Amino acid sequence: MVTKGSEHRTRASEDAVGELTPEQKAALGGGASFWRTKAVAGVSAVAMSDGPHGVRFQAEAGDHLGLGGSVPATCFPPAVGLAQSWDPELARRVGAALADEAQAVGLGVLLGPGINIKRDPRCGRNFEYFSEDPYLSGRLAIEWVRGLQSGGVGASLKHFAVNNQEHDRMRTSAEVDQRTLREIYLRAFERVVRDAEPWTVMCSYNRINGVYASQNRWLLTDVLRDTWGFDGLVVSDWGAVADRVAAVAAGLDLQMPGDTAADDAAVVTAASDGRLDASAVDRAARAVARLSARVDAGRRDVTVDADAHHALAREAAGRSIVLLKNENDLLPLDTRRSVAVIGAFAEDPRYQGGGSSHVTPTRVDSPLEEIRAAVDGEVTFARGFDTGGMADAGALRAEAVRTAAAADVAVVFAGLAASQESEGFDRDDIDVPGDQLALLEEVVAAQSNTVVVVSAGGVLRLAPVHASARAILGGALLGQAGGGAIADVLTGAVNPSGRVAETFPLRLEDAPSYPHFPGEHSRVRYGEGIFVGYRGYDVRGQDVLYPFGHGLSYTSFGYDGLDLAVDGEGILARVTVTNTGERAGREVVQLYASVATSTVSRAPRELVGFGSVDLEPGASTVISVRIERRDLAYWDDRLNRWVVEGGTYRIEAGASSRDLRLGEDVEMDGDDGRLPFTLESTLGELMSDPVGAQALGEAFASFAPAGDGGGEALGVDMLRMAASIPIGRMVRGFGAGSGVGAAEVQALLDSINARNSAGD
Amino acid sequence: MVTKGSEHRTRASEDAVGELTPEQKAALGGGASFWRTKAVAGVSAVAMSDGPHGVRFQAEAGDHLGLGGSVPATCFPPAVGLAQSWDPELARRVGAALADEAQAVGLGVLLGPGINIKRDPRCGRNFEYFSEDPYLSGRLAIEWVRGLQSGGVGASLKHFAVNNQEHDRMRTSAEVDQRTLREIYLRAFERVVRDAEPWTVMCSYNRINGVYASQNRWLLTDVLRDTWGFDGLVVSDWGAVADRVAAVAAGLDLQMPGDTAADDAAVVTAASDGRLDASAVDRAARAVARLSARVDAGRRDVTVDADAHHALAREAAGRSIVLLKNENDLLPLDTRRSVAVIGAFAEDPRYQGGGSSHVTPTRVDSPLEEIRAAVDGEVTFARGFDTGGMADAGALRAEAVRTAAAADVAVVFAGLAASQESEGFDRDDIDVPGDQLALLEEVVAAQSNTVVVVSAGGVLRLAPVHASARAILGGALLGQAGGGAIADVLTGAVNPSGRVAETFPLRLEDAPSYPHFPGEHSRVRYGEGIFVGYRGYDVRGQDVLYPFGHGLSYTSFGYDGLDLAVDGEGILARVTVTNTGERAGREVVQLYASVATSTVSRAPRELVGFGSVDLEPGASTVISVRIERRDLAYWDDRLNRWVVEGGTYRIEAGASSRDLRLGEDVEMDGDDGRLPFTLESTLGELMSDPVGAQALGEAFASFAPAGDGGGEALGVDMLRMAASIPIGRMVRGFGAGSGVGAAEVQALLDSINARNSAGD
Repeated sequence: MVTKGSEHRTRASEDAVGELTPEQKAALGGGASFWRTKAVAGVSAVAMSDGPHGVRFQAEAGDHLGLGGSVPATCFPPAVGLAQSWDPELARRVGAALADEAQAVGLGVLLGPGINIKRDPRCGRNFEYFSEDPYLSGRLAIEWVRGLQSGGVGASLKHFAVNNQEHDRMRTSAEVDQRTLREIYLRAFERVVRDAEPWTVMCSYNRINGVYASQNRWLLTDVLRDTWGFDGLVVSDWGAVADRVAAVAAGLDLQMPGDTAADDAAVVTAASDGRLDASAVDRAARAVARLSARVDAGRRDVTVDADAHHALAREAAGRSIVLLKNENDLLPLDTRRSVAVIGAFAEDPRYQGGGSSHVTPTRVDSPLEEIRAAVDGEVTFARGFDTGGMADAGALRAEAVRTAAAADVAVVFAGLAASQESEGFDRDDIDVPGDQLALLEEVVAAQSNTVVVVSAGGVLRLAPVHASARAILGGALLGQAGGGAIADVLTGAVNPSGRVAETFPLRLEDAPSYPHFPGEHSRVRYGEGIFVGYRGYDVRGQDVLYPFGHGLSYTSFGYDGLDLAVDGEGILARVTVTNTGERAGREVVQLYASVATSTVSRAPRELVGFGSVDLEPGASTVISVRIERRDLAYWDDRLNRWVVEGGTYRIEAGASSRDLRLGEDVEMDGDDGRLPFTLESTLGELMSDPVGAQALGEAFASFAPAGDGGGEALGVDMLRMAASIPIGRMVRGFGAGSGVGAAEVQALLDSINARNSAGD
Repeated sequence: MVTKGSEHRTRASEDAVGELTPEQKAALGGGASFWRTKAVAGVSAVAMSDGPHGVRFQAEAGDHLGLGGSVPATCFPPAVGLAQSWDPELARRVGAALADEAQAVGLGVLLGPGINIKRDPRCGRNFEYFSEDPYLSGRLAIEWVRGLQSGGVGASLKHFAVNNQEHDRMRTSAEVDQRTLREIYLRAFERVVRDAEPWTVMCSYNRINGVYASQNRWLLTDVLRDTWGFDGLVVSDWGAVADRVAAVAAGLDLQMPGDTAADDAAVVTAASDGRLDASAVDRAARAVARLSARVDAGRRDVTVDADAHHALAREAAGRSIVLLKNENDLLPLDTRRSVAVIGAFAEDPRYQGGGSSHVTPTRVDSPLEEIRAAVDGEVTFARGFDTGGMADAGALRAEAVRTAAAADVAVVFAGLAASQESEGFDRDDIDVPGDQLALLEEVVAAQSNTVVVVSAGGVLRLAPVHASARAILGGALLGQAGGGAIADVLTGAVNPSGRVAETFPLRLEDAPSYPHFPGEHSRVRYGEGIFVGYRGYDVRGQDVLYPFGHGLSYTSFGYDGLDLAVDGEGILARVTVTNTGERAGREVVQLYASVATSTVSRAPRELVGFGSVDLEPGASTVISVRIERRDLAYWDDRLNRWVVEGGTYRIEAGASSRDLRLGEDVEMDGDDGRLPFTLESTLGELMSDPVGAQALGEAFASFAPAGDGGGEALGVDMLRMAASIPIGRMVRGFGAGSGVGAAEVQALLDSINARNSAGD
């Protein structure tokens, strides 16, 4: 734990930076090796390692590229799974466990969490990210960071920012407008930086509106430090620095990996000849020193209880499974009956993604063995398909069909093989592999009681699965204990309460980003703007297979009496939730907001709060959820700040974004978003302002309308046209001979502006 | 006609500009009055007037705002109608007739055609534009301009550019990427400027990527003059100049309307104190003088034959009607049977749009009277609804149902009233008015043989009409003779051959631009990029009601034997078309192209050619259509030019964009689109170049892959990741200790580039 005393040591260590030589300062800003910073004049080296869902600690000697194996560590559910828990407290406990494992191998920083927005279902790294929604991503990441850092290990919030695809990731420029940046792609980062104070932020590989994240002063300094108040260290993604001098100037503190000797020297030269401000080098060195001191202060002797961590991984996995469909209550399974387990993933589970986050697990639960342990009836097995494509597919399928037909129920494990999705490349489609669909069709024909368990790091087009299977578990990737958790949910030992954190569309082509992904010529236009994920499906009123927030239970819940109380901080919402079924269960109550009238285009609804409750059958409770005022704001790109509009807000409570059970209206006072009038203000704008209308009425007897040549009569259409003419243009273009010039109008506007300012 | 002699006079007049005083030059660049330029030192004044589908000539005295009535003129079908003819030759004849009418009242320039792309069905001015497709828009506008200018009257190609909405039109900034600008929004302008050489181009009100069109040097000079070779005059839309000095500097020649004395003086001052280049003032003055000389040279004495022009208007309207649906061949009507005509628009037709293009017609055909004249059976009438909302809707409806039930067939005239769509504002929805739908439902219940004739300047959501009516005529706006043309088509005197020039979606929310229209805070993001109109519906595979190019006939046509011949100019496509039905008719054959593999995202197909043929029953002919090479190109935003990619192109011939009857592949040689390698080139790019692969193979024994920390094994995933790393970054981030630095790699790249250049 970081104490007051350690904060004092931290400052002392930073102060010492002032005494260093230019060479020493520059050296601090570059790594020593693949996973370690330099120890320089009393500032001790910091060891880092990939996360986020497990500690990927590598022996360093002779492995400067970081390609070798890592020491065993608990593989918790990757973000794609954990997010489905909608459980920030669980994320905090996972973070704390990860801190223990990191401490045990001497790490100072674990490189996570990844909180990029899942813009497109094809992104190869979506399994490392939480959600398509920034609010949900932010809430989960805050607690993950708090859990990790409470254990004396620094987080590295990544990939900052707008890194939403793997295709051409080291060059591509994400072309995004300011409002979309702030409301969608930066919003979770802002929340986590402000609320959880991560020790480090990792800049991404890509460019943002043409400028590399590593060299992006707007991003790393104006926004991150000056606006959000970040006081930690900005580290490059491994290999993300194209120009170290430009990066330091922009706000980057630490270039990784090392050895960076050549670039350290370039920093010294640039600072000495004035191309680089010396204060930037100082800032970077101080940030490294501060991190080093924080790590030193947080150092603990820890012995990891692998069994306890495996149990936590199983608990987390159980919370992360979503019951997508459960026709005729086929689930939970009657454990007395026989079960045919089908599919290669039942023996060799898919439980984590490929690439830098890949962990060597301490052990891996076999779903098949866990089902065998949990079920009293006979459990049979057939592989059904071969992800390597080496076996005779027909023979595998025939065996599977025989096996399924002979049992009381079939459980088919479907999904993507590790080779089909990974960091480093994006998928071309979101289809379930054709051989698995063919298998499923034949199994269902032979066995109507068929459950499908889906394992994949990204969203799949499940419409054909939904059409044939009676029950479906959305398993995402569940970590090393996923096999046990699946058995828990299948048998009802755990009543599922997970909710999808990403919309499952009917077709890939429906995805808002579909035509704009992954771009071309190292540029990707974020054409869908703010309409990402459910915001996009909702604005077009498109049907989807599973809406954002969807998830069923083995029991049922009633919602009653939404009560809203407004105060300066936002809205306190209270809902009475009742377990109306016959099993104990957990309900995730979601709150969505919309505003009746807005000066900007808005999504039909946005997630602004959620909470969960465990209830015994028949039990009832009032759940309170705080909706923060900041979550009702939009980003105003003229004022360059967040604005809460005054007016009527609709707050809806529901079990998913499209299963809204209750709704109430509430009045909110707005922030002042008014701009002074100019010659570019329109007649309509002036007339809709009380002071402006009065002043204009006094100044003019009548208004001169126009079109491109005017129209036929002064009808309603002409008045509507006239209302859109800038007042300066009206004087210039149509006021000739009226004796009124731009100077007179400007004086009038000045007086209106003065009266409005005085009235504030 | 403009002769060689007149061109000589034109040059002489321009040369005289050199002799003028600064004040005289500046005066030439601003209008004298609402519709007239100044007569200055031998340069005679030019009279202009609104078009495009008729001459809106106004007596000038005492009407400096152009709000008074105009003298009667033939109202030809507005562009929304004429475009449905898919008949460039017809557009040329209409243009020539307009020239006669303009000459008769002494006009030098008629302000048209409007060729903005119909980006969103809600745009209030879509009725003045041709299509959602730039190829179709360009082909029609070229012949319209040729027809007009062959009569000695100048065209004004407008609104240049990216003016695709009325909302906040005088300020809003259209935020569009370069490729979309070139391929969609500027492409028809480019084609018309290059091929038809309009005497003037009118700049639009709006801003483009932040810069007013009137002050946009990139638009008015770099693109229009320097790239496309425009030699005419750039006139402002009326009131579009916010800063005359900036506008002249950017390339604007003429500010309208006048009196512009104050701005003329500002130009003189700016030129004398050096803020404005004197050559820009000269250029503007010369352009006005050149236009004036062209107008003088083209002046003719013309007497208009109003009957002949009305007949042409009727012919054009007949070609412009689209048979959208014709179940059980309900149409053409059996003229011996009784007809119930229903709907206010049968008496008071909607035939043109509101705003600056509004013409005082020489006469107006009543659809009701024209049907009475054409049908031998009894013709009854009921208003059915009242667009003013003043009458008792229930009583009107009941009368209409009785009338329909008593006849053999009902023809319902539905659509939008003039107050519901106009220049100056956009629609909020595209619904058929609810009272009309209610009427239709009751009429159809009483009379199954119901035809609907739709009149509106914009696309409507016709799904409910399609679901209930047996036959539908898409009448758009048809001009003053539309009533006769509708009777012609209803009775079969004209066999319909029109095709929709804009997709009719199932729902407004399906429109590609839907969430991005009309923007906010004076900015509108063209988020859908190149995927406008059918390009957008096709790329997402969305169902639509009537696809682009759709239109039925009273006969049927067979397509056979698509033959493609490639030459340096493009592709000559030949298709055998046979009239397989029992009536003479005209078929519009459409050709669409796609490319099998592309380095950029592409629409699934694009219109690249069309032609039409009139055939007697049983007759057959080979129709030849030239596909120009330039229409296969995409805009490369790195090279800043058009590029035709080499490879396999699929050419499809069909009766609509989704009724493709024949398809053939053809190989095209590509333009060179290669860029030299740099340190930002990726390993993958180098390895896919034969010279690069060889050189790298010689230089390195192996490659070092990475991730953000590398991965577990050197599998396929790792190689895929490595391929995306810029070679300079590989040296910097992962090559430490290898002894290879950036200088060595740059030398290698230089040698690869040199060998590639030498090989060209």
